[in-house]
This record gives sequence, structure tokens and C-alpha cells, in this order.
Amino acid sequence: MSVIKNEAVTASAPAKAFLFGEHFVVYGQPAIVLAIDKRANVTAQLRKDDRISISSSNLRIAGTFKGDKYQAQKGGAKARIKLEPAKSAVQQVLEKVGSKKTGVDVRISSNIPVSAGLGSSAAVATATVAAVGRLLDAELTRDQIFRMAYQSECLVHGTPSGIDPAISTYGGALQFQKNRDFIDLKVQTNVPLVIGNTKIERSTGELLAIIRRTRESLPSIVDLLMVAGARTALLAVDALRKGELKTVGELMNINHALLCAVGVSHESLERLVYAARNSGAFGAKLTGGGGCMIALAEQNRQKKVMKAIERAGGTVFEACKSDEGVRIES
Amino acid sequence: MSVIKNEAVTASAPAKAFLFGEHFVVYGQPAIVLAIDKRANVTAQLRKDDRISISSSNLRIAGTFKGDKYQAQKGGAKARIKLEPAKSAVQQVLEKVGSKKTGVDVRISSNIPVSAGLGSSAAVATATVAAVGRLLDAELTRDQIFRMAYQSECLVHGTPSGIDPAISTYGGALQFQKNRDFIDLKVQTNVPLVIGNTKIERSTGELLAIIRRTRESLPSIVDLLMVAGARTALLAVDALRKGELKTVGELMNINHALLCAVGVSHESLERLVYAARNSGAFGAKLTGGGGCMIALAEQNRQKKVMKAIERAGGTVFEACKSDEGVRIES
Repeated sequence: MSVIKNEAVTASAPAKAFLFGEHFVVYGQPAIVLAIDKRANVTAQLRKDDRISISSSNLRIAGTFKGDKYQAQKGGAKARIKLEPAKSAVQQVLEKVGSKKTGVDVRISSNIPVSAGLGSSAAVATATVAAVGRLLDAELTRDQIFRMAYQSECLVHGTPSGIDPAISTYGGALQFQKNRDFIDLKVQTNVPLVIGNTKIERSTGELLAIIRRTRESLPSIVDLLMVAGARTALLAVDALRKGELKTVGELMNINHALLCAVGVSHESLERLVYAARNSGAFGAKLTGGGGCMIALAEQNRQKKVMKAIERAGGTVFEACKSDEGVRIES
Repeated sequence: MSVIKNEAVTASAPAKAFLFGEHFVVYGQPAIVLAIDKRANVTAQLRKDDRISISSSNLRIAGTFKGDKYQAQKGGAKARIKLEPAKSAVQQVLEKVGSKKTGVDVRISSNIPVSAGLGSSAAVATATVAAVGRLLDAELTRDQIFRMAYQSECLVHGTPSGIDPAISTYGGALQFQKNRDFIDLKVQTNVPLVIGNTKIERSTGELLAIIRRTRESLPSIVDLLMVAGARTALLAVDALRKGELKTVGELMNINHALLCAVGVSHESLERLVYAARNSGAFGAKLTGGGGCMIALAEQNRQKKVMKAIERAGGTVFEACKSDEGVRIES
């Protein structure tokens, strides 16, 4: 695998955490998402040939694409699907700069838990676009990076909301509502979080189907719950801007209950959520469509909350809002 | 303790289970309560003297009242407060028939769990009124029995809603709303329940204070949750009348989440609730103001649900709607 020059460009992009609005966003309700200080790092380097080679050190998979062909290097043929978003991200930049025949090596190294609803795949796609863009002197704007990352997500995930690549691109705290522009909430205050993972993976599609069925059977109630959910999100925006974390926590607790009401929580998640609340978190709720929960806790309580979540069976890490979106590292 | 004649009258009255509306009923929302097939039995017998002697075999307490004086027989002086509602019930019947100087022995034997939000004390008061009324040939109507039992509850509990003595008196399924008459729902279908007890006692006052604080801090959301709660109750009335237990269960799950949203559930309750749902119950929720939960489950699933609740740490019993309110046993 000889490269034509020694230059390598590394870019990184943050993971996201849903603070409010997961699932309900599909029904037009507002969502509040934060970029968190877990990042995907992507290093891009030119190749002599016209292949796109992608490896992920944390997933322990690697393979090379040449046109439609895939040659597995690590993790077998089934790893291909996990490498597709990054490949698609590379291809879009190549198309943009008009050099489809350029070969690129992409090395992914991420500390974002996967299949956890934390936007790991979008962070990789976003960082890949940025790294390859810089490598090829494409001078991409943030908006262009977002759109390319979004396109590569679309190829893999159908038509996602765009929340994940948006937060990975712009960082900070964003409000999203269907068919509207993202709003940068310009939250100044620190948002100290503990994220717990049940490791129980559930597909977003399955969860959305549960909500759809509940809504079909009891529309007058579910619609009311969604209005209540929207209110928790909008009041939380206010509270975040004022730095009133206790109120944000209270709103998270209520929002979690609304998600329980439509049937998308489960026992393991509840255990972690209660562990966090009982150990002094301001509030706790499930986050995103995976098996993760998020707790808001003062920094001097975080260790206690983390221990409680671990005792309740979760893997756990600290996180906080990261105002930096995608960036070139070197 | 010699009695003047051998006649003894036994009456019994059922316990209640909140199916919908606990706590929210204070805010004017509808509540649905069921009489269940756990009963308090009260045997009344005349005494030679003018004392009121009361014993409870299940609580293992006993004492004798003479005017304002209390003489402990079992359980010490602190047992007095638990015997007061029955004493007050006796006194009201004596006043009604104009024989204040009559002495009565009252023996209570109940299989209703106490301090569990199942209306044990109201069932005792109701059965006491009925037994003493028959003993003294007072020919009390049901409405009179209800009012006297309610008065004796008021003496002890301030100004309760009257739900407990109403269901103990009339049996069946009742809808209650503040400042309105009880509505007999005339539910024909069987309502097979499993009731799990965490044995974690919490005062209703404490729980209502939590809701009050949440409502003060976030009125626009809590009011919406209460409207949603009312909708679950009213849709459940429809479903109960049609015998659609699956829908009732779904509504119970949502109603439980609304109670979680205002902060009155806790981890042990959640464990039992999820145990019931995961073992095939139509639905499960906390019930009343105590540490109990209630699951609606087809009769051929009840054993499985009971086992699951026990494994999750609860004590458990089967119950079903009892259409018989207070009655004379012998």
C-alpha cells in the first residue's frame, strides 16, 4: 500500500446526544441536540492507485473499494456495510473536486460508542469529508461538509433527519424541527453529562413502529403527549440559556416519562435512569434511539452518578457539551 | 368481657384498587376505582358495659375505649390511632339509634394489605358501620352506611375524597370526580388483576406535595399531563364496558408514565411494573398512594405474572373486580 506522498490530513468531528425530542421529532416536534466531547478521528492520505481503502481501528475492520468491488482486509465481507458511509463521503469529495480516479486511504479512530444512538456513523462521515476535502484542497465550507456528510448518511440510512451530521459539523447545541432550519442555540453554560449504555441495541425503526401503533390506537392521547414533549424541549432551551440546570433536569425527567408513555423505554434503561436520579443527578432520560441514557449532573456529583450507573449494570462515561464541530487536527 | 346476649353480627366490605386517576383526582380529574375480592370482616357483639372494645386479629392490636379514655390490650398505646376509625364508626351508629351508652365488641379480621393504598381502613369502617347497624336493628340504607363510614374516615384522615368508603359500600366499578356524584360504571366484564406490593410505604401527603411542586414549577406541562390522564381514564371506561382489556392495559401503561412524569413512582415500583408487562400482562401501573402496583392480565397468564412480580421483589396476590359492596355475612 504505497502512497504517492507522505502528507496525511486528520480531521475530527463530535458525537451527538439527544437532550430532547428523539422519536417525537418525526412528528414535527422540536428536538434539542448537543455535540459532546467524544470524537471520531479520520486520517486521509492519497494512494498511488484509484482505490478507496478504509480501516477502523476501534471496529477492527478494514477493506478496499474499487468501483463496485469490495475486498475485505479485516472483518470479512460483512464489514463492508459499516465502511460504506465513509466510502461514500470520500466519493462525494472526489466528485466535487472532479478527480474521481484519485485513490484515498482513510483511517478511522473513534472513541464514540457505536449503535448507541450517539451519532457515531455521522461523526465518521463528517470527519471523512473534512479530511479528504483538505487533502485535496477542496476548500469546503461547513455547509458543504454538512451536506456531503448528510448525503453519505442518506445512502446508508434512507432519509435521516440530518440531525447527526449537523451536530457533528457545527458542534454546540442545536434545535431542530422538521422542514425548518437548524437553530444554533448559543448555549453558553457548561452542560455536564453522564452517559450510560445498557448495551441493549434496538433499531430506531422498531421503536418508531411502536410509537406509530400507539398513536394509531390512541391518537387523542399520543398527540397530547407530543405537545407536552415539545413544551419540555422549548422550556429547556430557555433554561439552558439561563444556565438553570436543575430545571433542565426536571424537564428531562418529564420528557423521559413521555417516551415511556409511548412505549420506547425498557427495564434496563429504567434501572440506569433511576440510579442516576437517586445518586443526585438533576435529571435523567433515555437518549436517542439506542440503549443509552443521559444524566445531567453537577461536576462534583458526576463520579457518584457514574458509579451508581455502573452498579445498575451500565457502562458509563462522562461527557459535556462541545462547542467545536468538525475540525482539522493536523 | 361478658356479653349480654350471644348474638353476633358479621359484615364484610371490599378493598379498592385505583385503576386510573390516583393523585390527579385532587386536581379535578376523573378517577376509576374497582372493588376487589379482598374483604375486611367485622364481627360486632353487644357488651354488658358501655365500652367500645376493638380488636384486629391481622394487625394484632386490641384496646377498649370508654369516652375519651383508651385502655390498651394488645399493641400498646400507639395502636389506638389504628383503632380510631372503627371506634368512630361504632359511635356514629350508636348516635344514630340514640343509644350512646351501649357497649359494643368489634372484632376485625381482614385480608386486605394495610398501608398499601387499597383502602383497608375504609373497608373496616364500612363493615363496622354495617355490622353494628344490623346488631342494633338500625336498618341503615347503603347511602347511610357510606356517609357514616365517610365521617369516620374524615375524623382520622382529614377530608378524604370519599372514594374508599364509596367503593367499600357499593362495590363494582365507580367513576369519581371532585364535587360530582359517583357514577356506577356497570362494568359487566371480569377484570382479572394481579396486585404487587413493594412494601415501600409512602404517605399520600408527601406524594401530593411532589406533584404540587412540579406543577408550580412547570404548570403548562403538568396541566397537559393531567388532561392526558383524564383521557386515559375516560377511554378506559369505554374499553371496560366493551370488555376490551388489551386497550385498558395500554391505557394503564400510559397513565403510569404520566404518574412517573409528575414524580410519584420509584424504582421498586418500576421493577414490578416491568416484570408484569414483560411476563405478558396487558398493562401495569402503580395504584393508589401506597407502594402497590396493579397489573391487568388474562386469567391464564396470572400465575406467570405473579411469579415475575415475586422474582422482582414484590409480594403478590390475585384479585378481580368484586360487584358486591358491603354485606351482612351472618
